[in-house]
Amino acid sequence: MPVLVMKFGGTSVATLDRIRRAAKRVGREVANGYDVIVIVSAMSGKTNELVGWVNETSPLYDAREYDAVVSSGENVTAGLMALTLQEMDVPARSWQGWQVPLKTTSAHSQARIEEIPTDNIMQKFDEGMRVAVVAGFQGISPEGRITTLGRGGSDTTAVAFAAAFDAERCDIYTDVDGVYTTDPRITSKARKLDKIAFEEMLELASLGAKVLQTRSVELAMRYKVRLRVLSSFEDGGDNAGTLVCDEEDIVESNVVSGVAFSRDEAKMTLISVADRPGIAAAIFTPLAEAGVNVDMIIQNISDDGRTDMTFSCPVDQVVRAQQAMAGAKERGEINFHELDADTEVAKVSVVGIGMRSHAGVASQMFRALKDENINIKVITTSEIKISVLIERKYLELAVQALHDSFGLENAA
Amino acid sequence: MPVLVMKFGGTSVATLDRIRRAAKRVGREVANGYDVIVIVSAMSGKTNELVGWVNETSPLYDAREYDAVVSSGENVTAGLMALTLQEMDVPARSWQGWQVPLKTTSAHSQARIEEIPTDNIMQKFDEGMRVAVVAGFQGISPEGRITTLGRGGSDTTAVAFAAAFDAERCDIYTDVDGVYTTDPRITSKARKLDKIAFEEMLELASLGAKVLQTRSVELAMRYKVRLRVLSSFEDGGDNAGTLVCDEEDIVESNVVSGVAFSRDEAKMTLISVADRPGIAAAIFTPLAEAGVNVDMIIQNISDDGRTDMTFSCPVDQVVRAQQAMAGAKERGEINFHELDADTEVAKVSVVGIGMRSHAGVASQMFRALKDENINIKVITTSEIKISVLIERKYLELAVQALHDSFGLENAA
Repeated sequence: MPVLVMKFGGTSVATLDRIRRAAKRVGREVANGYDVIVIVSAMSGKTNELVGWVNETSPLYDAREYDAVVSSGENVTAGLMALTLQEMDVPARSWQGWQVPLKTTSAHSQARIEEIPTDNIMQKFDEGMRVAVVAGFQGISPEGRITTLGRGGSDTTAVAFAAAFDAERCDIYTDVDGVYTTDPRITSKARKLDKIAFEEMLELASLGAKVLQTRSVELAMRYKVRLRVLSSFEDGGDNAGTLVCDEEDIVESNVVSGVAFSRDEAKMTLISVADRPGIAAAIFTPLAEAGVNVDMIIQNISDDGRTDMTFSCPVDQVVRAQQAMAGAKERGEINFHELDADTEVAKVSVVGIGMRSHAGVASQMFRALKDENINIKVITTSEIKISVLIERKYLELAVQALHDSFGLENAA
Repeated sequence: MPVLVMKFGGTSVATLDRIRRAAKRVGREVANGYDVIVIVSAMSGKTNELVGWVNETSPLYDAREYDAVVSSGENVTAGLMALTLQEMDVPARSWQGWQVPLKTTSAHSQARIEEIPTDNIMQKFDEGMRVAVVAGFQGISPEGRITTLGRGGSDTTAVAFAAAFDAERCDIYTDVDGVYTTDPRITSKARKLDKIAFEEMLELASLGAKVLQTRSVELAMRYKVRLRVLSSFEDGGDNAGTLVCDEEDIVESNVVSGVAFSRDEAKMTLISVADRPGIAAAIFTPLAEAGVNVDMIIQNISDDGRTDMTFSCPVDQVVRAQQAMAGAKERGEINFHELDADTEVAKVSVVGIGMRSHAGVASQMFRALKDENINIKVITTSEIKISVLIERKYLELAVQALHDSFGLENAA
């Protein structure tokens, strides 16, 4: 039988009632003739609670123990979903990551999937089981410890299963009914997109549009997994949601498809660093080792053999970054006057495949921000996106101005 | 280094603060020169929440999924305890049941421990780790599914580890400071016992004095594990709590050591069963298969080749028992007129090793109950205990009357 992967996020399994609603959707696909692999997140709020406990216990936690703790939420949902399906007379059982076993690297709390053996689950499908419920977000390291795939990792679990089982489609059920031109909570003019290219989705996801985890989109792109994002709270029929697909499947691309943002950014500046070859490596290697997700990097003009180095990272990694830099300074690897942390910034980006063939997008963006008197602190660009750091308090204003400026409420 | 097992129950790890307090006790034993195996329960209330969800989802649940769900609480505590110890600079890591691996039977939700390999943890001790934090209550079946050991199973986990690692002692930290002559919430005259024999503890535990899980005491008795019950909230020094030990270590035993009770019992009566050889097996085999914990069994006097068969079980297994009996009737294995369920009964017992050499305990017990006009519904006896079923509403009164009658407030 063809295999379908269905992933339900935290809000879609937040209560026993919602698990039942999700299970009904699964039951319908089973009735349609699919063997279904269901990937579940933890019940809404559970993972945050666990993460909070870990942080309170140990601010610089052992990531192996972090993973052991925070992975437990998904196990609960997986078991409850299997039980719910059984109550509906759908043959189902749950798998925890180590039972599959979903093999990952040892990079705890942001492990990467290395292998998903299919024999165990396929054998159960052959024996008449119709639904394999798999706890998302988790796997097992070569050392036999539990790993997790980073926040939102259940999306990646889903796509990886879809690739491994050659699934007909990977449906991501979430609390929104698709991918929007921007967050509808910021502007009521935000509009749902029927289709979006993998590349655009990738930029949107990495820029903070939290619909899909970045790596899930990368994986879907690499393995050509048909990925659909849709609401678990609405019945939209077969064409519901947003299809994330190849660029060539989109007839007319928009110059700008969406405005993405990331609220909780920090801008860190190392003041007066020796401007010598290898200095960037000397700075960013310890940051990487400390697990700091550096995003933008800007090196200012050198003056007297010294320079300022600016980078951005999530605001909750500032302490970690500071410690990594202080350590590198102590070990004599780098030398700097001081480390300035601006924790009141946000990132706003415009994204669109059409940008490649259209000039003037950057200048239009900067003009729109200038018209609202919003100062730009840092700019970075890629082929299909332009991002700026601005003061956090202007975030909503900036998103609305850009959405208007690029006419996204009318986008095709 | 000598090994010590320390087990912390749910109330002892109910909050991060309490986990820290427990960790400090562990740290002190490490400083005393022990390698410590810490067995943890789920944070207070967590397991009940999970059990509630399973029951609401599926009243006749698949026990394999039940185990997958309810075992998650211990994993959280184990990770948090390891992190807390690390913060105190005590080298520690967590183990989940399947990682040890703690091998059990496949009897889900009441599995029995078959083997605890020690090499993995001993190797870490050899490498300098000082504390192995193990999630209690759980193991892994030969099929690779998660199993649980029944409510209170973390006690059994602790004693089994103490036996496997030849530990110097197994300290059970709980919310009471020892074993009492009866539950102090029922009478303020209840008194802590300094020592109690394994056999007495076994009867008390199985009769509902919830200090220790029955099987943990059985195991301790079989493997001569020195078992101490003590409070995690008080510092009582080296002689704190109650030592559960061999009968010969107790110089002068009491005739009656304690009054135990079990509040939530049900009395089931199969009315008009054919009185033929094999009828007991025909009744109790399906009950056992349905996982009903039958306690007392009474067969009434036969009349015209038919008889009434009465048994007691926990009140939350009544539905299961009814279904098992209905099934057996349908399959023609047994025949009965009706199945009467009295769900308003409780069990009260007096326990004491001294009973063996003292006559008149039973008559004294029945007289004390009669003086309070409490009707006895069922009686059973063993060498060192006498139990009765009574109406639940008289439970407190009965316990107080018996505690007074046997002078337990003055017991040595």
